[in-house]
Amino acid sequence: MKALVLASGGVDSSTALAMAVEKYGKTNVYALSISYGQKHDKEIEAAKKVAEYYGVEQRFLDLSLIFKDSASSLLKDSGIDIPKGSYAAQQVDFTKYNEADLTNRNTTDSENNLISTYVPFRNGLFLAGAASIAQSLGCGVILYGAHADDAAGAAYPDCTPEFNEAMNKSIIEGTGHEVHIEAPFVNKTKADIVKIGLGLKVPYEYTWSCYEGGDKPCGVCATCIDRAKAFADNGVGDPAQ
Amino acid sequence: MKALVLASGGVDSSTALAMAVEKYGKTNVYALSISYGQKHDKEIEAAKKVAEYYGVEQRFLDLSLIFKDSASSLLKDSGIDIPKGSYAAQQVDFTKYNEADLTNRNTTDSENNLISTYVPFRNGLFLAGAASIAQSLGCGVILYGAHADDAAGAAYPDCTPEFNEAMNKSIIEGTGHEVHIEAPFVNKTKADIVKIGLGLKVPYEYTWSCYEGGDKPCGVCATCIDRAKAFADNGVGDPAQ
Repeated sequence: MKALVLASGGVDSSTALAMAVEKYGKTNVYALSISYGQKHDKEIEAAKKVAEYYGVEQRFLDLSLIFKDSASSLLKDSGIDIPKGSYAAQQVDFTKYNEADLTNRNTTDSENNLISTYVPFRNGLFLAGAASIAQSLGCGVILYGAHADDAAGAAYPDCTPEFNEAMNKSIIEGTGHEVHIEAPFVNKTKADIVKIGLGLKVPYEYTWSCYEGGDKPCGVCATCIDRAKAFADNGVGDPAQ
Repeated sequence: MKALVLASGGVDSSTALAMAVEKYGKTNVYALSISYGQKHDKEIEAAKKVAEYYGVEQRFLDLSLIFKDSASSLLKDSGIDIPKGSYAAQQVDFTKYNEADLTNRNTTDSENNLISTYVPFRNGLFLAGAASIAQSLGCGVILYGAHADDAAGAAYPDCTPEFNEAMNKSIIEGTGHEVHIEAPFVNKTKADIVKIGLGLKVPYEYTWSCYEGGDKPCGVCATCIDRAKAFADNGVGDPAQ
């Protein structure tokens, strides 16, 4: 079996890549790294370092044009700042905007709690692109790093078990039963992932999580907060710090 | 409600576009036309003419890099000729190749009947891209023209009701319940579609179906055969001929 791993250069997908290499062997693993118009190249640079570390073949895609109408704060062209603070705080903060302000902006939605850093159907698009490439390369499985913390409170609806199950069914049916998804962390926390990764000696010093593109992680965006907590929960420091 | 229509310039999607314009009004409809590395530009040119006819805003995407490793005969870079004859004939013909020849080529598969003109997970990828764009533009629904003839015999697994249902669920879940799919023809034949389209006065003279990119439709590829039959079944000539 050959495997394609969605490799963003962060903690979760780098751990998924380590698991794939252990399970399938590095010559049977491809890393796929996708640009989507994010504010910096740090993620892609990190993804390159991790893929090189594992010696797997890497593919790159640029899908940023698809998001040119999105107002997600993760996107360079949105003109919107990335909020500081945890995901929960973002959801509270955004209620100060009225509905009219938010029409067609996807910065948030009072009903479903979409947050400023949500990029429309990003995981769905990435998995669909991965399915096309996987089937072309003869890979029977796609791994990706969606996990329970990102799905919590419906912050990222494209990280939930419900989404993952439906997308897996879509890919199985749409590829004529040749490709399926494995989301090993869909019911795990980021602390669980780090625990697994520490056991596998994942080179977390090469990974990048921060939403900003500074020389060092900002330490105050939602993903920096999550990451720091995940290492602290395992009683270790973050090697990227 | 605003709607995004996957508009390939063929009979099915042009009829879907006509239905969307009738239901939602042309100012609420976007057409999305996607290049995927096909052997000619006839489809995109046709999609432009149809979108202009209806006066709807049109978006274009080029996703051809995603398919660079595919050996689908529809792709310019595959170096494989498009078979002549009906889909059923293709499925029989391909059994003359042995399994080893077909490894990783996706030209066919003895178990699931994938055919030479199948492009890996194309509809899944197109719908996922459409979902990202739809949510960015504030469209609540995506229309596309998958129909029962293309799903028959599992020729195109990404046209089946099972695929459509799973992909719809993926998009509903992954967009936080903001976007869903309508596939009005998923249980209809191409003849049914033409009947609906004739009632809506769809400008079929602008559409293009042939897999080849000649000055005129070749008349002998699978989609030319299907199209001719659909018009004949309605007792009319094909206005594009």
